[in-house]
Amino acid sequence: MPDAEAPPQIEALIDLMARLPGLGPRSARRAVLTLLKKRGSLMAPLATAMAQVATTARDCRTCGNISTADLCPICTDDRRATGEICVVEDVADLWALERAGVFRGRYHILGGTLSALDAVGPDELRIPALLARIRSEGTREVILALNATVDGQTTAHYIADALTPTGVTITSLAQGVPIGGELDYLDDGTLSAALRARKSF
Amino acid sequence: MPDAEAPPQIEALIDLMARLPGLGPRSARRAVLTLLKKRGSLMAPLATAMAQVATTARDCRTCGNISTADLCPICTDDRRATGEICVVEDVADLWALERAGVFRGRYHILGGTLSALDAVGPDELRIPALLARIRSEGTREVILALNATVDGQTTAHYIADALTPTGVTITSLAQGVPIGGELDYLDDGTLSAALRARKSF
Repeated sequence: MPDAEAPPQIEALIDLMARLPGLGPRSARRAVLTLLKKRGSLMAPLATAMAQVATTARDCRTCGNISTADLCPICTDDRRATGEICVVEDVADLWALERAGVFRGRYHILGGTLSALDAVGPDELRIPALLARIRSEGTREVILALNATVDGQTTAHYIADALTPTGVTITSLAQGVPIGGELDYLDDGTLSAALRARKSF
Repeated sequence: MPDAEAPPQIEALIDLMARLPGLGPRSARRAVLTLLKKRGSLMAPLATAMAQVATTARDCRTCGNISTADLCPICTDDRRATGEICVVEDVADLWALERAGVFRGRYHILGGTLSALDAVGPDELRIPALLARIRSEGTREVILALNATVDGQTTAHYIADALTPTGVTITSLAQGVPIGGELDYLDDGTLSAALRARKSF
């Protein structure tokens, strides 16, 4: 559809915006038009903020969290327990757990899941780094907080196998009915997991 | 929902991204995560492109089109007829007409529509500039290509009234059944407009 009807620099900007998730060619065009209308109040600050984050953001050397320093604030927080490592797929998952504010240990970000289709093996996933951490930090418990998807659970099983020789306690998030969930709307897998893991009332 | 679980610079970036149309707080977060993962290949080029457009883009002095020069490429194109001015609400409408490639005259961008609700009067809309252009350029025809909305048509009538003293020919886009349109799915307004404007076969 889009011919080069806008100046080339603006077309280039639209093309880059269209690569963001949730934006297609049409909505990227609309977003750029909004930016053009708010050049001073939105576009310039956004460009500055983006450039600043692009230069300063880096992966935490220990856990893989996004940070502006060599070690992230969680890894340098003395008040957080060092004996517990919560393994997550992604920074978004870490953010979700931090929002909930229930976990006070450290994290380890895999950077994805094992996937034969996408040729993602253990070495692409910071699993060797996890093993090294467990040995050097004297970790007591590893909580596998991976997504309840096929890829997530395959990865969880692989990690559990890899960690067995270290003798660390391996746990995973409970599966069951989500808070506020109505049984009628739940899938069979969740229902059967909730029934199997039933507890005394 | 979102607590400050990410570093403050990244939270600031998410807040700015969430102000783009089509992105809410959640999708802005997801977009920023993608940017963080592709810092070198996407985030840095996007920041550069955005900063460049923010500094170089300006409104064409004559027609209001977005350009990187004082006058836009359309206004400086000698091969385009100067006697016809197509009046549109927005740069997006100009782009749409240029994509279609059927109009070879000049444009005039209003920058919106009259709106009592939003307190947009004629002086906010570059209507005085349009009148000045018609007088100085010796325009023969003004094509009102405003959206077929209530606000668009109100604005079109206002402009037609304002232009009457200049003696210029005033036309508007034809209304009717869109190409590929099925009668069954068309609204009553379109059907009745198409019937009223019927032509010999």
